[in-house]
Amino acid sequence: MQDFFRLTSVEEARKALLSAWSPGPLPVEKVPLHKALGRMLGVSITSPENVPPYARSTIDGYAVVSKDTFGASESMPAMLTVLEEIPMGAMPSNKIDQGQTSGIPTGGALPGGADACVMVENTSALDENTILVFSPVSPGENVVRQGEDVRCGELLLQAGHVLRPCDIGALAALGITSVPVLVKVKIAVISTGDEIIDPSETPLPGQIRDINTYSLSSAAESTDAQALALGISEDTYSSLKNLVEKGLEQADIVVVSGGSSVGTRDVAVQVISDLGPPGVLVHGIAIKPGKPVILGLCRGKPVFGLPGHPVSALLAFDLFVRFAVESIYEASHVRPISEDAWVQARISRSMASFPGRKVIVEVQLRHDQGQVWADPVLGRSGLISTLVRSDGQVTIPADSEGIMQGSQVWVKVSRGHRVLSSFRRILTVEGNKP
Amino acid sequence: MQDFFRLTSVEEARKALLSAWSPGPLPVEKVPLHKALGRMLGVSITSPENVPPYARSTIDGYAVVSKDTFGASESMPAMLTVLEEIPMGAMPSNKIDQGQTSGIPTGGALPGGADACVMVENTSALDENTILVFSPVSPGENVVRQGEDVRCGELLLQAGHVLRPCDIGALAALGITSVPVLVKVKIAVISTGDEIIDPSETPLPGQIRDINTYSLSSAAESTDAQALALGISEDTYSSLKNLVEKGLEQADIVVVSGGSSVGTRDVAVQVISDLGPPGVLVHGIAIKPGKPVILGLCRGKPVFGLPGHPVSALLAFDLFVRFAVESIYEASHVRPISEDAWVQARISRSMASFPGRKVIVEVQLRHDQGQVWADPVLGRSGLISTLVRSDGQVTIPADSEGIMQGSQVWVKVSRGHRVLSSFRRILTVEGNKP
Repeated sequence: MQDFFRLTSVEEARKALLSAWSPGPLPVEKVPLHKALGRMLGVSITSPENVPPYARSTIDGYAVVSKDTFGASESMPAMLTVLEEIPMGAMPSNKIDQGQTSGIPTGGALPGGADACVMVENTSALDENTILVFSPVSPGENVVRQGEDVRCGELLLQAGHVLRPCDIGALAALGITSVPVLVKVKIAVISTGDEIIDPSETPLPGQIRDINTYSLSSAAESTDAQALALGISEDTYSSLKNLVEKGLEQADIVVVSGGSSVGTRDVAVQVISDLGPPGVLVHGIAIKPGKPVILGLCRGKPVFGLPGHPVSALLAFDLFVRFAVESIYEASHVRPISEDAWVQARISRSMASFPGRKVIVEVQLRHDQGQVWADPVLGRSGLISTLVRSDGQVTIPADSEGIMQGSQVWVKVSRGHRVLSSFRRILTVEGNKP
Repeated sequence: MQDFFRLTSVEEARKALLSAWSPGPLPVEKVPLHKALGRMLGVSITSPENVPPYARSTIDGYAVVSKDTFGASESMPAMLTVLEEIPMGAMPSNKIDQGQTSGIPTGGALPGGADACVMVENTSALDENTILVFSPVSPGENVVRQGEDVRCGELLLQAGHVLRPCDIGALAALGITSVPVLVKVKIAVISTGDEIIDPSETPLPGQIRDINTYSLSSAAESTDAQALALGISEDTYSSLKNLVEKGLEQADIVVVSGGSSVGTRDVAVQVISDLGPPGVLVHGIAIKPGKPVILGLCRGKPVFGLPGHPVSALLAFDLFVRFAVESIYEASHVRPISEDAWVQARISRSMASFPGRKVIVEVQLRHDQGQVWADPVLGRSGLISTLVRSDGQVTIPADSEGIMQGSQVWVKVSRGHRVLSSFRRILTVEGNKP
C-alpha cells in the first residue's frame, strides 16, 4: 500500500512531460481536394478572388432598374422592353437602361445598369418583347453583389482548422484543388514479450496473441495520428532498443506496450534511460488500472511504456499518448481534436475509491423512466468483456471518498459510432429536439 | 405564397421514399484487421476459443494451494517449497501439491493443483527453495480462470456493430485477422449545369466552379458512405440521363445537384421520371433553404435532385440522402450512425418562422457568463460565409410562430472536429467533469 505515496498523479505526469518537451509545429504537405476531408489546414486561406466574381440573380425572372418598378401593382403594372434572355454560363450581351429588362435565370450574371431582379411569378409577357411587372423591387433585391459571399483578400479559413464538407466546397469555389494540410502525427507502436505472437498464429501453451499492436494502432488512428506498427520485441535489452531507435527515426511518438512483469518493465526503463537524456521522466502513475506507466523523452520525442494488459494499455493511451498528440497539434495551432462526448447519468451502484489514485470505471448507459443510469461493468481482468461491453467511463477522483449509489456522474462516452448514437438517442429522449 | 400548401413536409417526403423503396442488406467483404477500424461488422462474431486459453496469474508472485495460506500472518507465515520459476511464454513443468509453490509472472500460466496466487510483496525467500507467505489468499484470488474473459462459443460482437479500437484488439485476441464487414454504401454524385466548370479551371465570364461535387462527396464520406464523383452533366436530357444511368449501375444512391433554374429542374424531373417507375416521388419540400428538392426511385435505387445552391444542397443532403444511407445501414442491422451532437442554448435574437415551412438557421455558439448563446449567422446567400462560420443549426418547426430572443433552443452541432471540440469545451464549462 505504501506505493500510493510514490505514485505521480495524471496531471503531474503530463506537466513533467511538457516541462521537458517542446513539441514543434508539424510540417505541411499538399493533398488533392477530394482527400482533404478531416485534415487540418497547414496555412490560413485568404480568398484569391471575389465570390461571386460578378453580381448574380438569386431567382428566375427579369433583371431591372429597380426605380422602374416603384409603385407597380396588379392594377398598375410597369411595362418594360425585353432586350434578351441571358443564358446560364455566359455574360449578358446588353446593358440595361430605364424602361428595359432582360430575362435572367437563377445564378445568371446581372447585366450592367440593372440593380435588382423581379421574380417571373410577378410578371406577365405582353408580347414577344414586352413584359408587365406587377410588384416593386428595392435596389439589390434578389441579387447577390460581387464579393458579397467572400471578398477578395478576406481570411476564410485559419491554419489549424479541421476541414468539414462545407469547407471542402468553399475551397473548390476558390479554385484551391491542392490543399496545404498538416502532416499527421506519426506514432510508432511496439509490443514486447517473449510470449507474444502474431494474431494470425495459433498460440502454443504459454503464448498469447498480440492484441496491443492492433488496439493501440487503432487508438492512434482515432486521435487523427498515423500508426506505424513496428512489430513484437523480445524481452531483451538489444531487441527493444533496436525497435525503439527505429521508432524514434520514423515517428514523432514511440509507444511500447508490455512489460507488466517486473523483469520486462526493467528492460523498458533501461532502454528509455539509455536513449535519453532526459530518458525516463515518470515511472508509475496514480491511476487504476494502468499504474505501471512510463513516460520518457528520448532524442526530443516522447516515449511511452504502457502496461501489457490490453485494457490498461488503452486507458493509458487515452490519458497520455493522446495528450502528447494533442500537444503536437496545439503547437501547430490545431484546436483540440477530441470527439469525446459527455453524458450525465446516475450511478446504479456505489463505487469505492482508492485513496491517492484516480479510478476509471467502465459503465454501460441505460435509459429507464426518464433517467439515464450508468451501470458499472464488472469483471476483474476483462480484456474483451470490460471494454467491448462498455459505453463509456466514469472517473473517481483521487481525493474522493467514492461514489454513492444514485449520485450524478459524468460519463465520458467512448468514440465509435455505436456509442455516440446511443448518446444521441439518450439526449433525444431527454430533450425536445427537432 | 400559395406554393406553401403544395409542398411536402420533410417527414412526409421520407415516408414517401420508404413506402416505395425497400433497401436490402449490404453485401459483406473481408478486410485485414488493421483496416477494420470504424467499419461495420457483417456477421456476428462468436468466440472460437476460450480467452484466456488457460488460467493465468494477474500478479508477479507465487502460485499456491490457497488452503496452505489460510491463517498466515506476519507473525505466523506459511512455509512453502518452491518447485520452479514458471517462465512467460511457456507452460509450467510441475503440478503443485499442498506445501508446494512455483514462482509465476503476471500473465503466466497457472500450474495444475494451484488455485490462487500470492503477491511477491507478501512473501519472503527463506532459502533457495523455500518461501514464507505472510498473508492468506482465497481460492481464485489473483487468478483469471480459463475462459473467464470470453467463453468459447460466446457471442462477442453483433453484426452491425461499428468497430472501435478495443473491438479491433478483441478480434486480434481471437485470431480473427480478416474481418467480415459490410461493403460501404456507394453514392454517385453528379453536378449539372452548362455554366459549371472544374475547380482547377479559371471561370470565364458567366461560369462558376463546381462546388457540389466536392462538398457532397465529402458529405457522403461523413455518412460512412463511399462517394463516386461522376462529373458535370450538361443541361441536356441525354447528358444527364447518361450520367444518372451510370450512377444507377455503379452506386446504391444517385445524387444530382444543380438545376435550381426552372429549365434545368425540368430536365432532372424528366430524367428521373423516365428512369422509373416509380420515378419522381416528391417534388418540392417545405424547408428553407432547399425547397426545390426532388426525391425519386429508379430501378429500385433512390435518386435525389438537390438544389444547385451549395448551402441548400448540403442541407438537403443531410435531411434526405443521409436518411437514405441510414435506411440502408438499418436494413443491415447497423445502428444509426450519426455522430451529431446537440447543445442546448439561448437564441440571441428573435427568428421569424415561415408558416408551413421548416426553417433551418445556421448559428454560432458562444459562451457568456455561464450561459451558452446561439447567435444566428446572417447573410442571404452565403455559400461560404454562412456554413463555414456556423457551428450548428437551429430548426424552427413548420407549425411554430417563430422563436423569441432568449428562448432555449437545441442546436444540432455539425460534425467536424473543430465544432465537436467547441461543443466539448462548452459542456466542460457547464459541468464539473473529471
